[in-house]
Amino acid sequence: MEHSKIAVLGAGSWGTALSIVLCSKGHHVNLWMRNEEQYKEMTNTGRSQKYLPGIDLPKNLNMYLDLEKAMVDSDAILISVSSQAVRGILKKIKPYLKGHEVIINAAKGLEKETHLRISEVVAEELPENPFVVLSGPSHAEEVSNNMPTTVVVASKSKEIAEFVQDLFITSTFRVYTNPDVIGVELGGSLKNVIAFGAGIVDGLGYGDNAKAALITRGISEIARLGNVMGADISTFAGLSGIGDLIVTCTSMHSRNRRAGILIGQGHTLEETLKEIGMVVEGIATTKVAYELAQKYGIEMPITQEIYDVIYNGGSAKNAVHNLMTRNRTHEIEEVVSNSNLKW
Amino acid sequence: MEHSKIAVLGAGSWGTALSIVLCSKGHHVNLWMRNEEQYKEMTNTGRSQKYLPGIDLPKNLNMYLDLEKAMVDSDAILISVSSQAVRGILKKIKPYLKGHEVIINAAKGLEKETHLRISEVVAEELPENPFVVLSGPSHAEEVSNNMPTTVVVASKSKEIAEFVQDLFITSTFRVYTNPDVIGVELGGSLKNVIAFGAGIVDGLGYGDNAKAALITRGISEIARLGNVMGADISTFAGLSGIGDLIVTCTSMHSRNRRAGILIGQGHTLEETLKEIGMVVEGIATTKVAYELAQKYGIEMPITQEIYDVIYNGGSAKNAVHNLMTRNRTHEIEEVVSNSNLKW
Repeated sequence: MEHSKIAVLGAGSWGTALSIVLCSKGHHVNLWMRNEEQYKEMTNTGRSQKYLPGIDLPKNLNMYLDLEKAMVDSDAILISVSSQAVRGILKKIKPYLKGHEVIINAAKGLEKETHLRISEVVAEELPENPFVVLSGPSHAEEVSNNMPTTVVVASKSKEIAEFVQDLFITSTFRVYTNPDVIGVELGGSLKNVIAFGAGIVDGLGYGDNAKAALITRGISEIARLGNVMGADISTFAGLSGIGDLIVTCTSMHSRNRRAGILIGQGHTLEETLKEIGMVVEGIATTKVAYELAQKYGIEMPITQEIYDVIYNGGSAKNAVHNLMTRNRTHEIEEVVSNSNLKW
Repeated sequence: MEHSKIAVLGAGSWGTALSIVLCSKGHHVNLWMRNEEQYKEMTNTGRSQKYLPGIDLPKNLNMYLDLEKAMVDSDAILISVSSQAVRGILKKIKPYLKGHEVIINAAKGLEKETHLRISEVVAEELPENPFVVLSGPSHAEEVSNNMPTTVVVASKSKEIAEFVQDLFITSTFRVYTNPDVIGVELGGSLKNVIAFGAGIVDGLGYGDNAKAALITRGISEIARLGNVMGADISTFAGLSGIGDLIVTCTSMHSRNRRAGILIGQGHTLEETLKEIGMVVEGIATTKVAYELAQKYGIEMPITQEIYDVIYNGGSAKNAVHNLMTRNRTHEIEEVVSNSNLKW
């Protein structure tokens, strides 16, 4: 295949790991970051101790502090900043774009004030550029160690999705295409709410049974909401839905889960955020999910309880008790009644 | 509610844990076992070190070696022996039954020679008795420690399912009903194939990304097969499907996973079975699943690779490589083409 020129915006764990995959395929990769100290470390030592400890960065990876220079002649722009920062970065790069560059979003979240998905934010800011979202069960640490990983790329355009599939696919990084942008975006964003809940369950000292129940009922309520928001319900049964949720809820790599553990152990939200020291997407996303459930009239009992714990200081133990003692029900009916589709 | 009289057949981890739940609700529980030494230990010490170490058995749990005495005046019979032993035990209890006793199956597997589900075996042996299957993400060790757990009871009869829901439900053991007997039975049985595969992935030293992919693609191929066998595809997205699969693939409690780990580390099948020392349901089930896939013409790439490792001495590493390098595909299409239903 031909080699492409890709600007990667954001040198956190995920942006750097994806840059490593792209470099391994011989692409020309310009990794842009804002932090001068990080830039110095990465260029001087060839490592990024905070984000990918122990990993040697590829020799053919180009680092930039200057956004304009990083963008020159790009075929694709990979966005890997925190989801609340996406709109700002799009505004900044707009002057440097020609309109044909494929925007690949790797950030997972919904815009806090507007409730918009990233594809909608991109459509507002860069209406001409083709859009792809990349998501799936993919801890950056493992990807950068070349461990087997699968992801999904979703785009309204099959051609664009296949272009991005070609960009990334290797024998250890398997890429599937999917036309359902809405479902892939919602799965990737809302999973952080459930991951936070999984952390709470762990922090309380409950076991694998409780966590499996939370994951299963969690994807079910995400699918209920996704369905009324226009997603294809089958996407939630795939890699970017249940797959990503599983990895996020069972791995210590997940910041959202680690934050939940601290809350479950009795720490305050403030102490927890200080301890984690990086953005915990699930905190903002829980509020957005709660508001979306209200807006669309969807029952999301798990999201409701987690919202109560984070934003109303509710007891984590009571939250689990409430979920376990709801009215006894039929497993499928409560979904069907909300969505007219079986899940 | 009224108290019932329940005979529990099989005093392994699961039968004993479910007996503890039933005793906590004040039911009259007769736990039958075959092993005289185990009987002595359980009656003399009030414990079962091999199956539920550290757990004090309830004072109101009655232990029996005599099958006929254990069966007297039963309202329900809970079957918790290995799935290949179910038919034999049904033949033995038949003379002691009146026909109204609800048969509750807690064994997870398919009959090796006939490929029959346990409900079909029960229908052949005890055609008069009502049938319920109980399944879900529920490690016995956690249930016996009163940790939050959810399960599904499935029966063709809503009334019978609700009777069994009432029998078991507590504030830490939440029971959902589901009409899809076929789906619940297949999910519970076939998960052990994938759990074995998850163990292989762990044994090879691969990470959480690979395992999440295996679980996600695993339930997808189980759903494909289940769909042609008459199951409701939505059941596989529920507690007895993906929920049970998650817990089995991520917990060290699972014998099937532990067996897979040993294979992944390079041990032979013989060494592995000796090391585990209990029945590994996934070994027999992999053969049945493989044969069912052939019979119904369903593509089950993961099952195929695991079959190859177990029965043809295939290399575990090659198996993962084969799965990662199949033709690149669309995430949903390959399911739809097989089932006419989106998964």
